[in-house]
Amino acid sequence: MLNMNVVEFEKIISEKSEIENEMYQLMKELYPICRSITGNGVRKTLSILRRYIPLQIHEVPSGTTVFDWTIPKEWNINDAFIKDSTGKKIVDFKKCNLHVMNYSVPVHKKISLEELKKHVYTIPEQPNDIPYLTTYYDEKWGFCMTHNDFVKLSDGQYEVFIDSSLKNGSLTYGEFYIKGERSDEILLTCYVCHPSLCNDNLSGMVLITMLARYLNSLTNRYSFRFLFIPETIGSITWLSINEKKIPEIKHGLVATCVGDSGPFTYKKTRMGNTELDRVVNFVLKNSDKKFKIIDFVPYGSDERQFCSTAFNMPVGSLVRSLYPLPKEYHTSADNFEFVKKENLSESFAIYLYILMILEQNQIYKNMNPKCEPQLSKRGLYSKLGSTKYKLKKDMHEIVFLWILNLSDGRHTLLDIAEKSGIDFILLKKSVDILQKNNLLKISELKNYS
Amino acid sequence: MLNMNVVEFEKIISEKSEIENEMYQLMKELYPICRSITGNGVRKTLSILRRYIPLQIHEVPSGTTVFDWTIPKEWNINDAFIKDSTGKKIVDFKKCNLHVMNYSVPVHKKISLEELKKHVYTIPEQPNDIPYLTTYYDEKWGFCMTHNDFVKLSDGQYEVFIDSSLKNGSLTYGEFYIKGERSDEILLTCYVCHPSLCNDNLSGMVLITMLARYLNSLTNRYSFRFLFIPETIGSITWLSINEKKIPEIKHGLVATCVGDSGPFTYKKTRMGNTELDRVVNFVLKNSDKKFKIIDFVPYGSDERQFCSTAFNMPVGSLVRSLYPLPKEYHTSADNFEFVKKENLSESFAIYLYILMILEQNQIYKNMNPKCEPQLSKRGLYSKLGSTKYKLKKDMHEIVFLWILNLSDGRHTLLDIAEKSGIDFILLKKSVDILQKNNLLKISELKNYS
Amino acid sequence: MLNMNVVEFEKIISEKSEIENEMYQLMKELYPICRSITGNGVRKTLSILRRYIPLQIHEVPSGTTVFDWTIPKEWNINDAFIKDSTGKKIVDFKKCNLHVMNYSVPVHKKISLEELKKHVYTIPEQPNDIPYLTTYYDEKWGFCMTHNDFVKLSDGQYEVFIDSSLKNGSLTYGEFYIKGERSDEILLTCYVCHPSLCNDNLSGMVLITMLARYLNSLTNRYSFRFLFIPETIGSITWLSINEKKIPEIKHGLVATCVGDSGPFTYKKTRMGNTELDRVVNFVLKNSDKKFKIIDFVPYGSDERQFCSTAFNMPVGSLVRSLYPLPKEYHTSADNFEFVKKENLSESFAIYLYILMILEQNQIYKNMNPKCEPQLSKRGLYSKLGSTKYKLKKDMHEIVFLWILNLSDGRHTLLDIAEKSGIDFILLKKSVDILQKNNLLKISELKNYS
Repeated sequence: MLNMNVVEFEKIISEKSEIENEMYQLMKELYPICRSITGNGVRKTLSILRRYIPLQIHEVPSGTTVFDWTIPKEWNINDAFIKDSTGKKIVDFKKCNLHVMNYSVPVHKKISLEELKKHVYTIPEQPNDIPYLTTYYDEKWGFCMTHNDFVKLSDGQYEVFIDSSLKNGSLTYGEFYIKGERSDEILLTCYVCHPSLCNDNLSGMVLITMLARYLNSLTNRYSFRFLFIPETIGSITWLSINEKKIPEIKHGLVATCVGDSGPFTYKKTRMGNTELDRVVNFVLKNSDKKFKIIDFVPYGSDERQFCSTAFNMPVGSLVRSLYPLPKEYHTSADNFEFVKKENLSESFAIYLYILMILEQNQIYKNMNPKCEPQLSKRGLYSKLGSTKYKLKKDMHEIVFLWILNLSDGRHTLLDIAEKSGIDFILLKKSVDILQKNNLLKISELKNYS
Repeated sequence: MLNMNVVEFEKIISEKSEIENEMYQLMKELYPICRSITGNGVRKTLSILRRYIPLQIHEVPSGTTVFDWTIPKEWNINDAFIKDSTGKKIVDFKKCNLHVMNYSVPVHKKISLEELKKHVYTIPEQPNDIPYLTTYYDEKWGFCMTHNDFVKLSDGQYEVFIDSSLKNGSLTYGEFYIKGERSDEILLTCYVCHPSLCNDNLSGMVLITMLARYLNSLTNRYSFRFLFIPETIGSITWLSINEKKIPEIKHGLVATCVGDSGPFTYKKTRMGNTELDRVVNFVLKNSDKKFKIIDFVPYGSDERQFCSTAFNMPVGSLVRSLYPLPKEYHTSADNFEFVKKENLSESFAIYLYILMILEQNQIYKNMNPKCEPQLSKRGLYSKLGSTKYKLKKDMHEIVFLWILNLSDGRHTLLDIAEKSGIDFILLKKSVDILQKNNLLKISELKNYS
Repeated sequence: MLNMNVVEFEKIISEKSEIENEMYQLMKELYPICRSITGNGVRKTLSILRRYIPLQIHEVPSGTTVFDWTIPKEWNINDAFIKDSTGKKIVDFKKCNLHVMNYSVPVHKKISLEELKKHVYTIPEQPNDIPYLTTYYDEKWGFCMTHNDFVKLSDGQYEVFIDSSLKNGSLTYGEFYIKGERSDEILLTCYVCHPSLCNDNLSGMVLITMLARYLNSLTNRYSFRFLFIPETIGSITWLSINEKKIPEIKHGLVATCVGDSGPFTYKKTRMGNTELDRVVNFVLKNSDKKFKIIDFVPYGSDERQFCSTAFNMPVGSLVRSLYPLPKEYHTSADNFEFVKKENLSESFAIYLYILMILEQNQIYKNMNPKCEPQLSKRGLYSKLGSTKYKLKKDMHEIVFLWILNLSDGRHTLLDIAEKSGIDFILLKKSVDILQKNNLLKISELKNYS
């Protein structure tokens, strides 16, 4: 097993077209399943992901108190439709699971158009799209449809049928832990509660799965923890059960909406100045991709819980289109047109680059800190002195001088990369050469187990 | 009696046209009085202000040592004129008290034009304006006139007459103190030594008077102290007598030149980063008014003394046109044309907004700091989850989430308003709702009496 | 003997045309000497400089270990040429000492054109310029010539002759120390190892020499140390021998390339925020010269060694054209055309201004810190109060108020100059007036010997 050193990183990045195909295929397989915050949709999803990584499945019973919240009843659904007075199905759950408001209670009756309209939701501004709505904590029922279909509805009796169940059961989530050299953890999470929506958040699920499978093949410095949880109630549940593990988590990312073609958008940790914040900023700045970086705001996804007042964990979120919300968000337009293979693999590469730097971002010590060492006698310096052409920043002498000068026990490799403007990978390769020449050694850090 | 909570603040602001009339009328009544740093002009002025607030009047005898200074002799004046050789009054103190250089010693004699010119001051660049000049610490006499009148003077004998007196007496100032819940004070000062000049500083006097009258009708968290003093020698006198009170003063503002139509200009405290500095910056930024903020400089008005080396008090100055000086400054053009009612009431509203935020700028604690509380079960969250339209910054859920997330015992309401961009009044109203729902409580701060 | 107070500073600056002539003449005298990092060229150079300052000459034997380095053998050269088959000298060391690669081992033989080409260096991009090259740590030989001459070489036999020696001897450097009131030192260094190159670094040598001679005529607050050393190996040698003196050095500048007409370029100390960094920034900002300020980078000249990891000394470098390198750098084009008298004297004035501020940058205490002192009774304030025209920043009242207000024991004169925008020289003259009036005294600083 290998460390994710820069050579290994370059290799996996070169193989990303293979990984992008795998992610896309997995997304296709997961797409039809009707997921919710509880129920068999989540279980089926996690069982598919177990083909890639040895996920541990947790079941938390309905009624369990998790901080200020209570695990709700478990919801399952078999079928649903609306039939018009001729018996024609004008809305069919089997064609699109967004048609049923998620967590709708069962219903089966004939009602007037007027009554029906009280239970139907559309988006007048996007008349061709079905909205995605939920009613987790309010026991009612409803249908969602396109506004174009809605305005065609004529007077008459309608048969509404939702074959769902809302009963005591449990909340299901998946967890995968890879032990590293340190007990310090990097947390990577996605949510698994959305039905047939591609970007939000099948893209996150497949990205996290592939990262987990890859990291599982290596020897890592950090331990890694991957969570596949229902949004909000899932992170609250995990935190409630695992409060003691929180101090071990040194960095965390919530992965969602990573398959569209929008610019990368990093939402900083609540602290705003953690090592993770600096690493993500560095990776995005040094990529050739469009990006923006925004401050923490207390709305969004599970970072709301990880960064709540008492926990204030170093968890950020790296997404593509989300701030502001794209029009496809939470509608049937969040489909295979909206997510592209190449976007997924770009996101994979950016996530991996971040993790690689976190793994490699160590402090070194110059073994010869009084004046420069004589590089020329070790063959590390152009012997022909004083040429005019020596000041390019990626010349190996210059890179060596930067590393040696700043390896004073206080600068990480990221600090050196930022100050010098030198590519991180070139920097790490040069560090390795200096180490081999006994000019540099890794700084012993205490407080790590 | 009420606190100046946000509801109360909105009420008084809605009544400001009434207050602006009162301020304007009071200014008209005070305008004709010939004030100076001592004498009956100040006494008459303070007796008029006592109709509005129960001012305490202090008299400090001439000759008293106040730090490096000495209270000067008291100056009073009855009449003054210059007559030409035909006996015609060409300059008449009764028409405009700026005609006499303030603190002129008595004189009555006939002199040549040549001799007269040594005692006459004009502004050649503004030939229609009479300058305002003083000679507090140099016993001499002089007249001020427009340059246009000056150039018309023909050869001949002139009778100069100043019926003034310069004798041992006292320096007079007014003070008003409102006890609050805390002994911590907010200091508001203006100067009362200028004769018939409207903006500098009748505008300050009427503004401070109306603020004092209003705050006197409420129960306040802070104690308030209002000073009506002659400039420079008055603040030096007050500080010399009241050195022990200085530590209680937590915020202070010198009010001057608040009636013209120039942009608001805040001159920061000498420290430059006090709570007051942040509050004024916030209020001005969130107003729709033009403004600028400048660093402390050791010239200007009484903030020079409050912010002198040893005291370094948290006192700023909020003015309109003053940096740079407008051409009307210290001339007869600083009159009722230069000051407008609506400018006075704008200034009143801005000052009051600042005081309201200082009163309300407390720290709260989230009672449920581990993950978010479940707002929906308390009716504080839209039950229809996942709509596309939930991310407007003034939606009440978003406001609640900001307050809860940042109420970690370290953020004041102002901090939350600045980070979230949410209007302060909406924020405070939302705080009250969260408090009623037992989700928030005020943080107990020690070190307050 | 005088302090370098502001009056003295203004006097020497007014005499700079005399100094610029002296610098230019000295540069002409030093130009023909073939210097290297060791050898008689350095000795001859230092003996000429001893006419100006009583330099102490140090000799460090070949083979001495200095940190990771070893003092090399001593190199000397008498003559060198290349003759063509007709016996004509086509390259002649006596005409230009750049023709021989510095530190070439002796050679005398006849070789083919093909063989010759392996030992000849040119700059194809600047076909009229001879490059300057060295081979200090690689025993070989070589010639440098213009590319235009090189392409004219025809087939045939060539006689190559280098009459040099490379033998055990010593490394030579010069040092001059002026004891000041304090043991704290200001270090000024230049390098003396380049042959006939004007800007790099005869300009530095003559500048440092003139500064040293001038400072030697005064009584100084700081001690001053001047080094005339070979680049790199010289600073490593000095540091190795003088490690205990390093803590005394409070500020340092490496002077090089100060005679061209490029903008002043200050390369900050490695710490980046020292008093020196602030002083240089202030001087350049308040000059009418073009300038830029760059962060420390670990390549350049001897600041690389002074700012190496373990030492991290407060040493910067103030140059003209160097970042980026001009095309004349390290070629025969770095001659008397490239360096101008008036550039040298501009550089002299800027260096001296920096040293003057370091000498004068003390902290004063307001003796009357409670409110302002009454300046008018001391004749330090315009007696005619309230004129419209009093707010110019260089009016003496305003300058006095700034000094008094900020002389709280925490602000240096530089701090006051930066905050107020007042010229440093005017500020210091005003300080002297306030001191005479017993309104100010110098703050006693401990920890100085």
